[in-house]
This record gives sequence, structure tokens and C-alpha cells, in this order.
Amino acid sequence: MTGKVTALALEQAELSGATRAYFAKCEEKLGLVPNVLLAYAFDEKKLRAFTDMYNDLMLGDSGLSKLEREMIAVAVSSVNHCYYCLTAHGAAVRQLSGDPRLGEQIAMNYRAAELSPRQKAMLDFAVKLTESPDKMDEADRQGLRDAGFTDRDIWDIASTAAFFNMSNRVAAAVDMRPNDEYHTMAR
Amino acid sequence: MTGKVTALALEQAELSGATRAYFAKCEEKLGLVPNVLLAYAFDEKKLRAFTDMYNDLMLGDSGLSKLEREMIAVAVSSVNHCYYCLTAHGAAVRQLSGDPRLGEQIAMNYRAAELSPRQKAMLDFAVKLTESPDKMDEADRQGLRDAGFTDRDIWDIASTAAFFNMSNRVAAAVDMRPNDEYHTMAR
Amino acid sequence: MTGKVTALALEQAELSGATRAYFAKCEEKLGLVPNVLLAYAFDEKKLRAFTDMYNDLMLGDSGLSKLEREMIAVAVSSVNHCYYCLTAHGAAVRQLSGDPRLGEQIAMNYRAAELSPRQKAMLDFAVKLTESPDKMDEADRQGLRDAGFTDRDIWDIASTAAFFNMSNRVAAAVDMRPNDEYHTMAR
Amino acid sequence: MTGKVTALALEQAELSGATRAYFAKCEEKLGLVPNVLLAYAFDEKKLRAFTDMYNDLMLGDSGLSKLEREMIAVAVSSVNHCYYCLTAHGAAVRQLSGDPRLGEQIAMNYRAAELSPRQKAMLDFAVKLTESPDKMDEADRQGLRDAGFTDRDIWDIASTAAFFNMSNRVAAAVDMRPNDEYHTMAR
Amino acid sequence: MTGKVTALALEQAELSGATRAYFAKCEEKLGLVPNVLLAYAFDEKKLRAFTDMYNDLMLGDSGLSKLEREMIAVAVSSVNHCYYCLTAHGAAVRQLSGDPRLGEQIAMNYRAAELSPRQKAMLDFAVKLTESPDKMDEADRQGLRDAGFTDRDIWDIASTAAFFNMSNRVAAAVDMRPNDEYHTMAR
Amino acid sequence: MTGKVTALALEQAELSGATRAYFAKCEEKLGLVPNVLLAYAFDEKKLRAFTDMYNDLMLGDSGLSKLEREMIAVAVSSVNHCYYCLTAHGAAVRQLSGDPRLGEQIAMNYRAAELSPRQKAMLDFAVKLTESPDKMDEADRQGLRDAGFTDRDIWDIASTAAFFNMSNRVAAAVDMRPNDEYHTMAR
Repeated sequence: MTGKVTALALEQAELSGATRAYFAKCEEKLGLVPNVLLAYAFDEKKLRAFTDMYNDLMLGDSGLSKLEREMIAVAVSSVNHCYYCLTAHGAAVRQLSGDPRLGEQIAMNYRAAELSPRQKAMLDFAVKLTESPDKMDEADRQGLRDAGFTDRDIWDIASTAAFFNMSNRVAAAVDMRPNDEYHTMAR
Repeated sequence: MTGKVTALALEQAELSGATRAYFAKCEEKLGLVPNVLLAYAFDEKKLRAFTDMYNDLMLGDSGLSKLEREMIAVAVSSVNHCYYCLTAHGAAVRQLSGDPRLGEQIAMNYRAAELSPRQKAMLDFAVKLTESPDKMDEADRQGLRDAGFTDRDIWDIASTAAFFNMSNRVAAAVDMRPNDEYHTMAR
Repeated sequence: MTGKVTALALEQAELSGATRAYFAKCEEKLGLVPNVLLAYAFDEKKLRAFTDMYNDLMLGDSGLSKLEREMIAVAVSSVNHCYYCLTAHGAAVRQLSGDPRLGEQIAMNYRAAELSPRQKAMLDFAVKLTESPDKMDEADRQGLRDAGFTDRDIWDIASTAAFFNMSNRVAAAVDMRPNDEYHTMAR
Repeated sequence: MTGKVTALALEQAELSGATRAYFAKCEEKLGLVPNVLLAYAFDEKKLRAFTDMYNDLMLGDSGLSKLEREMIAVAVSSVNHCYYCLTAHGAAVRQLSGDPRLGEQIAMNYRAAELSPRQKAMLDFAVKLTESPDKMDEADRQGLRDAGFTDRDIWDIASTAAFFNMSNRVAAAVDMRPNDEYHTMAR
Repeated sequence: MTGKVTALALEQAELSGATRAYFAKCEEKLGLVPNVLLAYAFDEKKLRAFTDMYNDLMLGDSGLSKLEREMIAVAVSSVNHCYYCLTAHGAAVRQLSGDPRLGEQIAMNYRAAELSPRQKAMLDFAVKLTESPDKMDEADRQGLRDAGFTDRDIWDIASTAAFFNMSNRVAAAVDMRPNDEYHTMAR
Repeated sequence: MTGKVTALALEQAELSGATRAYFAKCEEKLGLVPNVLLAYAFDEKKLRAFTDMYNDLMLGDSGLSKLEREMIAVAVSSVNHCYYCLTAHGAAVRQLSGDPRLGEQIAMNYRAAELSPRQKAMLDFAVKLTESPDKMDEADRQGLRDAGFTDRDIWDIASTAAFFNMSNRVAAAVDMRPNDEYHTMAR
């Protein structure tokens, strides 16, 4: 099931060849088509806009490793208690880190994980940005610089944390449900 | 100025012909290139992902009018106290509604505006999704249906509110500054 | 309209000569009689108590400039999302500062304004006092002293911030509406 | 001691005959001069503005009994954890009600008191106005009307609750200390 | 009355000789049987588990004085606005300290009390643990060590604060009412 | 590791025969000695008080099934972001329900689980009691009765939710770490 609101819409959609090919590639690489993509597929323009932004942020060039970006995803989703994103991205942290416990810790409370000062600073920033965006100021940015991040890295931390504040809310608003396969991945 | 973090990055960017053309069109239609676009322009892939999603959400087909989508943008940004988005989208509400007071009211507290029951329900949902995404449930969706919205409309309300929860946080994190022109528009 | 609760009461009121003279003076100096005064006018004793306190705080002798007192009014009203006070006192900040942008910034998020360290300390204190009065302690007062304020100035910052915590709540409780004229003043 | 900030200021003040007479009357009627008055006495204009507003609200004509107004004072001060006001007005509730337990209950948590539906509605309104003034709406006012209050009563409930949101913050900001005598009154 | 939920259950209970003896001892030493014990008495196993933990924590060996443990009880209960515990343990602070004002201050706002740096650090920790347990970290523990506490003391501070976070919630959930006698004790 | 604060204390403890036997039984039945017990073992009186209360609440007679009590434990621990309890009791929900997904859902956000109205009401009560104990009232208890619970059941829901509000805080305060084995149990 892909979410109560979008279920109906999806029935009416006809997927283009390009989308079918994209989904086949997901199936091949991940073993599944993430339900979030099925949820957006009722409108291919929305699907493409979402995947373009997602793929650039999470897989594109960055001073942050892919694991670090997934850690941000999970820490933000923990604050927002997002079932979809904690499930899907918790699995990614377990997989990319090879440390199942780390995925659990960040999903539950990133303060319980044994993080490097760099990663602690990164998640502190992401979580403050999630909880009180109105209170961000230069001292927060300076904290990241002091931990060794460049201004470009700050952009990437900020836009990844911000993206999941969007994605968590879409998932919550339409009751999006993660693929069952995530639960057992990389345990 | 386009934001403290991105200022440096931008100097190094070389805009492609396509981006220069896009900015020229902004200049022509809006009388300015929104600073958010300049902020993203240090990386054209990020710029395009942002504008594709933005243009689809705010200008594409929807059961919500363009004004209603701008009202959501402003109500969400008011909760998050986002100076950039309140300035730019407050101007849009003043312009699209032809009612300068309405833009002010939603920027300050949407509960002070004289809204139709439909628009009140729409903003109540957007604001709850902003403040406590973890507490959304079927009753919230049903409230929108009772106010006359379809499930497709719910998707649009949700993804617009969610988008500005992203955008507010990028702006806050990098101290993005709105173009001065917005302040005097449509007063 | 002066607020839903007080509208009825006002019809029955007969204004004294002194009050009529006071309102004429408002009209002459401000170009309008602020709706908050009309709201209180159903009982002249309450009106006088309110204006005596208001005029002393906002116009009387103080180590704070009139602009600084209006900045406190707006920063407090922003936290409380008070439509009436943001409208009326936002106009005052625009007018007294000759900087329309400053009025907008403080109404939206004072952290976005380029403030002197003195004014930043002043608004940090006023906002903490608004959000969590139970957590004020000597360190907060010392912060003001370190920024150059005397103990008498602290009293004035505190009582101005406190006054608008009162005024915001009266306005919210009776749905008080600002005069339309404020919206276009000093833009 | 009358509060750390004002202690210095007070030494320099010379009380007028009128103020000395007023304080003598307090001494006679209450057995003490409330420290809040001493705190304001460094400036007689401020003292008079404060006492004029206070006396009108708490002692003037109203559809609310004096006890009910003191109950509002205490319920608001409990949310704000104001030591000064809980001490002084808790004593007043004990005294006016002849029920020491009632004073304690409202100071601790008004939901623990056995209130009439009228008084429960009154304190629910005052506490919501204290905690989230931005969320007040017509339904809150209607709740008071349904409990038997007139629009004039709503004004009085609102302005009493609002007044103590001011007074709590002045007391917190300057560390105002209640007279010791209150602790043992009407136990 | 011992609380609305448990009143019924209690009628059906038959107290064992051991429990009757325990209650007689309470009566002798305290002049009353605390209502919390009557509330638990519907099941003697629950009663014994509660009293064993309570007596160890509050009366057993510890680097904290009995008064300090009662101060923690009251500061935690103030945050949670627990009528039962503020009444019963407020009386204990008044009694053990011989300073009625201290009991009032901590019940209202511990920041208003004149505490030693040690006791201030202790209550700061207990209150943060109450308000945001998810945000505790090594710096909080170090703060206690810097104030002179051992790791064993930290355990005692933590488990006392935690215990009242439990007890406050049981009392709130079943509307437990304190014995009237507490109100007048040690005034 | 059993938690930073208690590690030292434990080295000095000499376990009695009774405690060694109890731990051997844990090992036999659960395949491990829960770290929380090792943490309390520095003082056998505290250990026994904890286990007596725990065993009665979670394993004793009750109108709530063992699974339901574990669901409460996890829902409360999710609000408090307690790494220890989410890990240990999340495993218990997976095990007792035979539904690994259910354990994940309640750990992340119980609103995402497909619960019966009875269980939804039970967790709504437990979560409100966790988040705002000061706001519990008769309507909350009535909600449970309407969902089919007796007053005795309400006691059990309340005391289980309250217990984990204690336990979460002890774990957070001393940085208690769950046994690694829990992570892979019943996946």
C-alpha cells in the first residue's frame, strides 16, 4: 500500500516508458520500487521533480559522504517521528555503515550514538534546523566551520535536513507506508 | 546580497546560457531575479531541481488556485518566522488577491484573516502539518474532505506546505535575504 | 471595526469631553484614532489607565530611544503573532527608523535584522521574557549590563516587553482589528 | 527586599506626600505595603499608572467577583511560574474564598480544584490566552458565552489574564520578591 | 478522598495485618496515612513495591540529604504541576528545612530560591531531566561533578527526579488527592 | 557497557547469591541479563525494588495483555526518545506480537500502526500522560472507559506509562546502553 490519499490517484495513472524503465532499474538495484516513488507516480512531472532533487542531494557530489547524508535524513525524521523515512533511511544507514546498531541509534536518538565531533556537529545543526528554524544564526554556521565544514558543506547539510523536513511532512500528510522489505534489511 | 553562505560559491559559478535566459525571463516577468535562484545558481543541477519542483507546485495544474497556494506558503512561513519567504510570498498574496491587508494578515496570523471555511480548513491543515507532523491522522484528512477538497487537492495542500517547510529551513540555515523590491510591491 | 467583543459595548458609551478632545488630538497627530483606544473607550477609567501606562512607557523619559521601545513592541508581538500590534507598531518602527525594511524584519523575525550588539541583546532579553518568563535569571540581567544598559534601562526593557505581552493578549482575546491606515504608512 | 534591579533606584527616590499617604493606607488595610508598589515607587508616574490599572481591574465594577479575578491572577501566574504573584495572589484567594485549599490548588494546577462549570470555563480561557494567545478564536469566546458570560465579562476575563501576563514578566525580569507576610496569611 | 479511579477498587480490598501495621506506623509518625498509600492499597503487592522503592530513595543511604531529595521531588512536581506531590512534598521541604518560604519557592519556581551552587546544579539537572530527557548528555553529568557530586550522587539525583516523574503521572492520571493535613503543616 | 555513571560503582559491588541466581535465571529465560539490572546491581536493595515493581507491572495480573503493556512502554519511550527502552521493549513488542513491523511502528510513531480502537485509546492516554501530565482530566479517563476499560485497567495503563517515564529518565541520565542482542531479536 502506498498511502491512503494517493492510492486512488495511482490507479488512474498510466506510467510512461521512461518511468517504467526507472522503476525497473530501482527493482534491479534495490530489490524494490520505493513506495514514495509509487506515491508520486500519479503525476510524472511531480515524480521527476522529486527524484531529480532527491538524487542530486543524496547521491550527487558533496563534501558529505552518502552515509552522512543518510544520517541527517534519519536524525531529522526521528524528531518528526516519520514512520516512512525512519524505516527507509534507517535501513540505508544500517547498510552503508555496516553497523546495524548505528541505524537504530540515530532513529531513536542520535545523542546515543558514538559520533565523531564532526558528525555530532552536523546532526546538532540538522536537528536545531528541524526543531527551531527561526532561531538559527551565525553562531550555528560557525559551529559547523569549527568542526571542519566548508560553506559548501553547510549548504549540503542544510538542504538535506530541509529536504527531509519536506519529505517527512508529505509522508505524514498522506499516510505513506514504507515497503515491508526495509524492516529486515541489513540487520 | 543573496545569503552569507552562498555568496562565495556564487562568485565562482559560471552561468550557462540556459540559466542566463531563465534569469532574463524572471527579470522581464517579475522585474527581478529572486535571490533564492541566485543562491541555488552556484550549481545549475540544484537550481533546476529546485525550479522544476517549485514551478510545478506553485504554477502547475491544481484544484487550488495560485492565490491559495501562496496563502499556504505564507501561513507556513509565519509559523517558522522565515524572513525570506514571508517577504517574497507575502508580496505574492498581496498581488494575486489585490488585497494588501490579506497578505499582512496571513504573514502575521492567518487566524486574523476573514477566510472562507474552505480556506480556513486548508490553512489549519497546513499549519498543523508544520507544527506537529507526527500528530497528523485520518481525521485531519477527513476535515479537508468535509471542506470540499478531493484527495488530489489534499496531496497539493500537503506538498505545498511541505515544500515551504523545506524552503524556510534552507533560507534560515544560510541566512538568505529577499530582494528589496518585494517590500513595496502591491501595497 | 474595533473588535468583535467590544463593538456592542462601544455603541452604548458616551464619550466625555476630555476623551473627545484626546481623540481629536490623536486624529491631528496620527491621522487616526487607534482602534485600541476605541476598544477601551466603553469605560473611560479603563481607557485612561491604559493610555497613562502606554504614554509613560512609550513616550516618557527613558534610556531607550522611542524607536527601541517600538522595536521591543514588535519583537514581542511577533512571538505572540498579534495581528493588531504587529500592524500598528510595525508601522511605528518603519516611521521612526525611516527604514521600512527594518519594520518588516522585526515583525517577521528580529534575528534577520542587522542590529547593533546593544539592540540584539535588548531584543534577546525581551523575547526570552516573552517565551519563558519562568526561566529568567541573573545571567539574563547581566547580559544586558554587559551590553551597556543600566538597571533603570533593564526596568524599561522589561516593562515594555511585559506591557506588550498584556496588550497582545487583550487584542487576541477580543479580536481587536487595527486601523487600515497602518498598512500603507511609511512603506 | 524589593527586587534586585530596583533596589538601587529606590534609594534615590523621594516619595511624595500622596505616595506616602497611599502607602500608609496599604499598611492600614493590608498590614503591609506590597513590594510591587515599592518596586514601582522609584518613579511616581509609573507607580500611579500601575495602581490605577490594577485597582480598576481587581477592585472596580465587574461581572466577575473579586475572588474570581484573583483566581485568574493565580491560574495565569501558575503557568508562568511567577513566585511573586503566586505568593501575593495565592494569599488573596485563600482570604477571599475562606478556603485555604482552593488557593493552593489554583497555584499548583487549577484543574485539581473543584470548580463550577462557569469558573472552569473562565480559567480555561485565561490559561489558553496565557499559553497560546496566537490560537485564540471565536470558539473560545463562544465557550465563555455558553458558560453564561456577557461580552463585557469576556473583556474583564481577558484583561485580567492579560494584566498578569504583564505583571508576571515584570516580576521575573527584575527578580521581584513578595513580602514575607503573605506566606502565612489565611492558612 | 483518595482519587476517583481508585476509590472503587479500595472498597473491595481487605488489608492484611502487615499493611494495617504499616498504616498504623504512618499514623503514629506522620499523624496521617498518606493518601497515595491508600490508593495503592487495593493491591498489596503494588503497595509494597511502591513503598520499597520510595523508602529506599527518600530515606535510605545517600550523599544527598533528605531535604535535598525532597527539594528534587518538589522541583520536578512544579514542572509537572502535580497537585498531590506539591502538597505532600512541599510540606516536607517546609518541615525539613525549617524554612516555610523555601518550600513555597521551590513549589512555585526553584529559580526564585536562594540556593547554594550545589543545590542549584542539582535542581537544574532534575528539571532538565524532567522537561527534555532526550537532550541529556555528558555535559549535564559533568556539570554535577563540577558542583561536587560523585557518580553515585548523580545516580541518586537522577533516580529521585525520575521517580517523581512517575509518581506525578500516576497522581494526575487517577486524580489522586492529598490529605488535607499537609496544607497547614510547618507553615 | 552498562552506562557511564554506573560502570564504576558496579566494579565495587559484590553480588549476593540471590542476585547471582536471579541473573542466571535471566540468562536462561532471555539469553541475557538486561543491562538495566546490571546498572541497578551496585545496590541490591535498589535492584530488588526496581525488579519487584517492574515484574508486577509487566508480568503480574492485569486486564491488559503483556503485549499491550509492552506497547505502552514503547509508545512512551518514543516520545522521550529513550534509546535503551526503545531497543529492549521494541524487541519485546516484536516478539510478543510476532509482528516485527508493529514493534517498529510503535517505536517510530504509534499513529502509524493499525491499532484496534481499544489499543489506540490506550496509547493516546499513555502519550498524553507523558507529554502533558498537568492537562489530564476526567474526560481522558472517560475516553478509556468508553473504549471498554475498567477503572482497574486505567490504573494499570497509568502506572505502566508512568513507570516508563521514570525508567526513560534514569536511562537518559546515566547513559544506560541496551544489550546488543536486542537489535536482532525477533526481526
